[in-house]
Amino acid sequence: MHVLVIGAAGMVGRKLLDKIAAEPGALGSDIDKLTLVDVFEPVAPATFAGIAQTIAADLSDPGVADRLVAARPDMIFHLAAIVSGEAEADFEKGYKINLDGTRWLFEAIRIEGQKAPYKPRVIFASSIAVFGAPFPDKIGDEFFTTPLTSYGTQKAISELLLSDYSRRGFFDGIGIRLPTICIRPGKPNKAASGFFSNILREPLSGQEAILPVDENVRHWFASPRSAVGFFIHAATLDLEQVGPRRNLSMPGLSALVGEEIAALQRVAGDKAVKLIRREPDATIQKIVSGWATDFDTSRASKLGFKAETAFDDIIKAHIDYELGGKIPA
Amino acid sequence: MHVLVIGAAGMVGRKLLDKIAAEPGALGSDIDKLTLVDVFEPVAPATFAGIAQTIAADLSDPGVADRLVAARPDMIFHLAAIVSGEAEADFEKGYKINLDGTRWLFEAIRIEGQKAPYKPRVIFASSIAVFGAPFPDKIGDEFFTTPLTSYGTQKAISELLLSDYSRRGFFDGIGIRLPTICIRPGKPNKAASGFFSNILREPLSGQEAILPVDENVRHWFASPRSAVGFFIHAATLDLEQVGPRRNLSMPGLSALVGEEIAALQRVAGDKAVKLIRREPDATIQKIVSGWATDFDTSRASKLGFKAETAFDDIIKAHIDYELGGKIPA
Repeated sequence: MHVLVIGAAGMVGRKLLDKIAAEPGALGSDIDKLTLVDVFEPVAPATFAGIAQTIAADLSDPGVADRLVAARPDMIFHLAAIVSGEAEADFEKGYKINLDGTRWLFEAIRIEGQKAPYKPRVIFASSIAVFGAPFPDKIGDEFFTTPLTSYGTQKAISELLLSDYSRRGFFDGIGIRLPTICIRPGKPNKAASGFFSNILREPLSGQEAILPVDENVRHWFASPRSAVGFFIHAATLDLEQVGPRRNLSMPGLSALVGEEIAALQRVAGDKAVKLIRREPDATIQKIVSGWATDFDTSRASKLGFKAETAFDDIIKAHIDYELGGKIPA
Repeated sequence: MHVLVIGAAGMVGRKLLDKIAAEPGALGSDIDKLTLVDVFEPVAPATFAGIAQTIAADLSDPGVADRLVAARPDMIFHLAAIVSGEAEADFEKGYKINLDGTRWLFEAIRIEGQKAPYKPRVIFASSIAVFGAPFPDKIGDEFFTTPLTSYGTQKAISELLLSDYSRRGFFDGIGIRLPTICIRPGKPNKAASGFFSNILREPLSGQEAILPVDENVRHWFASPRSAVGFFIHAATLDLEQVGPRRNLSMPGLSALVGEEIAALQRVAGDKAVKLIRREPDATIQKIVSGWATDFDTSRASKLGFKAETAFDDIIKAHIDYELGGKIPA
């Protein structure tokens, strides 16, 4: 099987590749070829035994999608996007990369299929940003998509395209709406959502972190481990079961910031909790108040998608993945 | 005020123009200029006192949207589309006209606004085809859009673009999801939905009509008069009230085919009803069984949109509009 990963240098892409390298049968069939694409040349997993090609390219540039699809990959993970803040700051760039990039990929597959039968599986990374406030207490599987960002709009449009191209038989697609990933590895960044991870990751490594909102802010989380699990499951799921509604809100854990902190206390003790410094920021508080807090993801759960059900497990996943299994002394 | 109507030669476009010509203040301000566009050159209303320009052009062709917008119309009705059957039969044409045409219009407005402040009102004709079965008994204002046609997909994507461009302040847009228009004037056509109108229009003119489904088929209707009323109301409504969720399912009347026939009997007697010939068609019955049957359109009703509440009134609207106020002897 030939697997194409677009957006292979991103956080989820890298973890997906680690998983594939560690468990060669994870995607159902043996993988003899990996093609890895990102705007910066991605790194192939060192332990992968097959052919790995790495390409630095922008999917939204002319001809890129055609060239990638000409090799007729059997499975395509489309994880490439610019993030919400950048898509809001640069309207044209957001539509070019997040909408046109996706559409040109889908079109390239359709046109390749006109030469000889071709129907790859396409697994698309979408986002809960397709939803916009006000929300019900729990966002159900049939709630409408009224995004309040250009990023969310671009994801919602891509979802509609994915369903239509799948319905027409051009490929077999599935859209995975990710919860906020927590604990995001790496350095603290300036994303408004960064603190949800920062207040756990930094104290776990003995560093101070800033909490800009109060403890009764509620949000929707899944670990990087769960995110990889969603994509692996989507790659191997019988999509006949899914039917024409191809985009699924993934399971996650609805938790208060206070519950994050209580879990940190249980896993890493008071010493860690004391490293959280409260610096209320009205701007961030306001942005966050417009975000989804809880979901009913019955469809995805019935289809076998799984996430953590306790915040302690989200923290432990980080300790296992990023800290070699134990909290630094 | 300069008003641009794209799709001016279609049924709703022509009726909208008749209304504007008959009531020059219907859109809130006096209209000194009308620009009318369609793929075939539209006809300006004879009684319109201002400047009327008619243009044969395809909005999805390069440069057309830019040229139309360069005149900086204050109000833009975007009614142009190819219909569901054609968009399903010709995938590329459907996306070109129904998606790209709309997007290039929106982009032309955004780019025009970069030269000097410009924020027209945009009234967009959408459709209940944005929804796809299975449905709840009544489709509410927060039900998700999972279209089962490429046409519905193109309308749903256009709705998302309209909301995002409005949110960003590039124009002030509103999307109007029309019920099935009944009674459609003109000759019987081969659209699967044609019989809903045919079984009333033809007998009212002494002609036979074929009913291909049974009488307990339920569907969602509004008259051409109501459709024009929706667009007129959308043109003058304070859109601050509407907020960021810019696309509205319009009110309508949920009725059984049997209720259509009972209303025909009340309005035009047994003679008319006897002209309906039953010829069951399993294909049409199956297509129709996937269509929406009823809606809860509370939002639109609260915002002042109105439709008929009795089928007799839908028939009387046709007699008033199309038959000069009385049934031919």
